[in-house]
Amino acid sequence: MPTRAAAIELYYWPGIPGRGEFVRLLLEDGGTPYIDVVRSRRGGMAAMQRILDGQRRGALPLAPPFVVADGVVVSQTANILAYLAPRCGLAPAGAALRAEALQIQLTIADLLGEVHDVHHPISSGLYYEDQRAPARRRARHFVGERLPKFLGWLEQILARNVRAHGPWLVGTRCTYVDLSAFQLVAGLHYAFPNAMAGLAPRIPLLLALHDRVAQRPRLARYLRSTRRQPFNRSGIFRHYPELDPPASRRRRPTS
Amino acid sequence: MPTRAAAIELYYWPGIPGRGEFVRLLLEDGGTPYIDVVRSRRGGMAAMQRILDGQRRGALPLAPPFVVADGVVVSQTANILAYLAPRCGLAPAGAALRAEALQIQLTIADLLGEVHDVHHPISSGLYYEDQRAPARRRARHFVGERLPKFLGWLEQILARNVRAHGPWLVGTRCTYVDLSAFQLVAGLHYAFPNAMAGLAPRIPLLLALHDRVAQRPRLARYLRSTRRQPFNRSGIFRHYPELDPPASRRRRPTS
Repeated sequence: MPTRAAAIELYYWPGIPGRGEFVRLLLEDGGTPYIDVVRSRRGGMAAMQRILDGQRRGALPLAPPFVVADGVVVSQTANILAYLAPRCGLAPAGAALRAEALQIQLTIADLLGEVHDVHHPISSGLYYEDQRAPARRRARHFVGERLPKFLGWLEQILARNVRAHGPWLVGTRCTYVDLSAFQLVAGLHYAFPNAMAGLAPRIPLLLALHDRVAQRPRLARYLRSTRRQPFNRSGIFRHYPELDPPASRRRRPTS
Repeated sequence: MPTRAAAIELYYWPGIPGRGEFVRLLLEDGGTPYIDVVRSRRGGMAAMQRILDGQRRGALPLAPPFVVADGVVVSQTANILAYLAPRCGLAPAGAALRAEALQIQLTIADLLGEVHDVHHPISSGLYYEDQRAPARRRARHFVGERLPKFLGWLEQILARNVRAHGPWLVGTRCTYVDLSAFQLVAGLHYAFPNAMAGLAPRIPLLLALHDRVAQRPRLARYLRSTRRQPFNRSGIFRHYPELDPPASRRRRPTS
């Protein structure tokens, strides 16, 4: 590269890890210079809004997170990751493995959407407190059916890849998808500790992957820093005890 | 290319257009040889299940649709489209425009997920009839807030690109994203005719794009053929009159 690339600008809501955190993990683990615009720069929120309002040329995001990299606006978390991962050294090699990585990332994104809709089954425009009854119903189905299905699938992928290539989801080394799996497991432990305790015996490889990612030197430093934000009740992963009852009090998802 | 590539295999549930239809539109418009395995081959359902069960090497899909192209298994609709579009002549040129196309496709995918959850707000494992009350509540928010937001965003993208490049969503010519926008509009007209009639004055460019795509020669032939399946009440787009009341009887999404 003849010239040094400008730092990547990351735009995301302040106050929650949310979907922006998946992008932060990539940039932090890659040691890639970036500016977390809204959190670090006065007027960052207004700058984000200007791009959402279409005042900048190029791609128009519907919602954060989005990045500006070399003048190009890129949105949708999985798309951002796939776009930036090669320069961060965290993409697999070749079109087939990249498609495999993106299919896993998009399925993690589907699960994230379901995690969100457990506490917002009617509308993201209403408070949780205004949709608690359907949230409880949805949570029973999520914990009983959906969560085991998605995590079991990730476990199966790991089991296949461990035999073929190594202890990562795709190919022979760590990629952005492993970082996302780490964040997924961390968020689920926060939001659904009882459900995760029950599932633990069925997902040993996924839990080991979470621990392995957390020990990567750059990521370990990031996780200890103030840049890492805790989960809370404004984000995607939320802990409401009534949505994650202990196994002994869990109702079967029959209705 | 020294050798002729084998036909692409498409795997999807029979009986509904669903997410598989987005892949069919790409392959049909591209004139790309493909086999719609489950619909055209005896034993196709069992073949699909074997791949879902992990009996084939390579990427493991969580769910259909998926394709097998040159021996590579690719799943997740948007990922399939981005992967196949170059060989179908329906990808934009260059990394920046490809990222822009994928961000639009992924946002269409988000809207599709919301369309699905209007009739299944509690669980995809329950019948619609077992979640009608929360479905009505969710439908009010969907029609009143989410649908105008997403379609208004697509209209804005078209307005920007028409000025800069041409009457398509990305760049100077038709890409896979335009085909998906066509299918989205067609499905919404089927499922929410009243809501779409109300929105029509605000989305003239999007409606014109729908018509323009439908007139593309290969696609027009496909749409007249028996390969094109009608929308129905088993798919993503479902018409339930109670979820799409006439404007005069529509309640505001306040609860």
